[in-house]
Amino acid sequence: MNFHVMTLFPEMIENAMGHSIIGRAMKAGYVSLEAVNIRDFADNKHNRVDDYPYGGGAGMVMQAEPVYRCYEDIINRMECPESSFPRVIYLTPQGRVFDQDMAREYAGEEELIFLCGHYEGVDERVLNRIVTDYVSIGDYVLTGGELPALVMMDTISRLIPGVLNNDDSAETESFADSLLEYPQYTRPAVWQGEEVPSVLLSGHHKNLQEWYRRQSVIRTAQRRPDLLKKADLTPEEQELVQEIIEGMTDKQTTRVE
Amino acid sequence: MNFHVMTLFPEMIENAMGHSIIGRAMKAGYVSLEAVNIRDFADNKHNRVDDYPYGGGAGMVMQAEPVYRCYEDIINRMECPESSFPRVIYLTPQGRVFDQDMAREYAGEEELIFLCGHYEGVDERVLNRIVTDYVSIGDYVLTGGELPALVMMDTISRLIPGVLNNDDSAETESFADSLLEYPQYTRPAVWQGEEVPSVLLSGHHKNLQEWYRRQSVIRTAQRRPDLLKKADLTPEEQELVQEIIEGMTDKQTTRVE
Repeated sequence: MNFHVMTLFPEMIENAMGHSIIGRAMKAGYVSLEAVNIRDFADNKHNRVDDYPYGGGAGMVMQAEPVYRCYEDIINRMECPESSFPRVIYLTPQGRVFDQDMAREYAGEEELIFLCGHYEGVDERVLNRIVTDYVSIGDYVLTGGELPALVMMDTISRLIPGVLNNDDSAETESFADSLLEYPQYTRPAVWQGEEVPSVLLSGHHKNLQEWYRRQSVIRTAQRRPDLLKKADLTPEEQELVQEIIEGMTDKQTTRVE
Repeated sequence: MNFHVMTLFPEMIENAMGHSIIGRAMKAGYVSLEAVNIRDFADNKHNRVDDYPYGGGAGMVMQAEPVYRCYEDIINRMECPESSFPRVIYLTPQGRVFDQDMAREYAGEEELIFLCGHYEGVDERVLNRIVTDYVSIGDYVLTGGELPALVMMDTISRLIPGVLNNDDSAETESFADSLLEYPQYTRPAVWQGEEVPSVLLSGHHKNLQEWYRRQSVIRTAQRRPDLLKKADLTPEEQELVQEIIEGMTDKQTTRVE
């Protein structure tokens, strides 16, 4: 996977990558990353790439031409036929909300281009010309597209075969059965007077698996009941979920706030 | 607002901040940030802070004691009474999903502590002891809590009075009426043969406002129809939305894929 990031803050992208899974994946040769500075493609001596919005209004808008030239520069170096131009992801609160399924789809691409705008926006004409995917990482407003691009690249990199070693690849299955992970404990067995659950020390494989499953069901019911719609629960588990949700509702109605 | 981040990668937090709105807000004195290295609170000469999970399984788990000591260090320096201990946000895919409403709530706090775990997890006992808020930035799996903490701090900082200047503060209203922003254009008026919409050059205030509103409605219907449930639409706008959604459905059913 080759990531190309069009940005006004290339150092922000490059610095953050060193500490991420992508840094490890780059060293191992599974992933490459280039951050291309849109400002290098300004057509004036002040290196300005933004201007006032037509019609008035707050903030500045990034101009079409420098963004387009930056894109052309990346594409020209790729030497791929027009029919196989890579996807261009524009990070925007107006996009489709990113999730693990989308990450899996992107992980199958060979090249991905990210365009990081400022929140104030990018001239619509260049977006129409080059962007294939409008993506949001969530319903909140950020200063620019850099953090969302980093979030997407981290998530996607983890799904590229070879990037995670066998030891941790199992983690990526976390969302697969629509249940949250069970609680984790490590040494010491007693910390500040609190013991780890005894089943974890029992070495009894069947009991352990049952405990993991039960804890996952309980936790999902408590924290993200919306995920349970897609989960495959036994009749006993459905009853447990019902009890938890009713218990929470009881508490809420009796609590004086 | 004083942000305190408990992390194994303090440089990642500090580097990213310089390029964010938080950098500006820090210089202006509205926000302070400290990244505290959990590893500094290890109790062994190898500075190890993780160990194998009890019960087996993939990955390593962060130990309770170094996390707790790191927390105590932050709290002790604050000199606040126990009754007003700050909220401690643990970044986890198991948390409540962050949105602009939650950001507004957090922006009213004076101190916020973030705990960045590894995905593999943190010993449950210390989480139970110190964490007040379990928060996820979206339904996808990341390597650690650092990027989510940066995302939350960027979003929250923008909502602190004084951080954004008047020119750009209007942006934060974007999600307020449950409609997406209209398209933005800047100079030149003709780019690669494409003109900006003529209404933007007309200087006719009423037509401009109508165009903005209509474009917002159209765009929201096309990209995020789920947001429209909360939007306050006129009967004409509701009709327009209906047409767009029906048009999209027609296209989808007739398109051969």
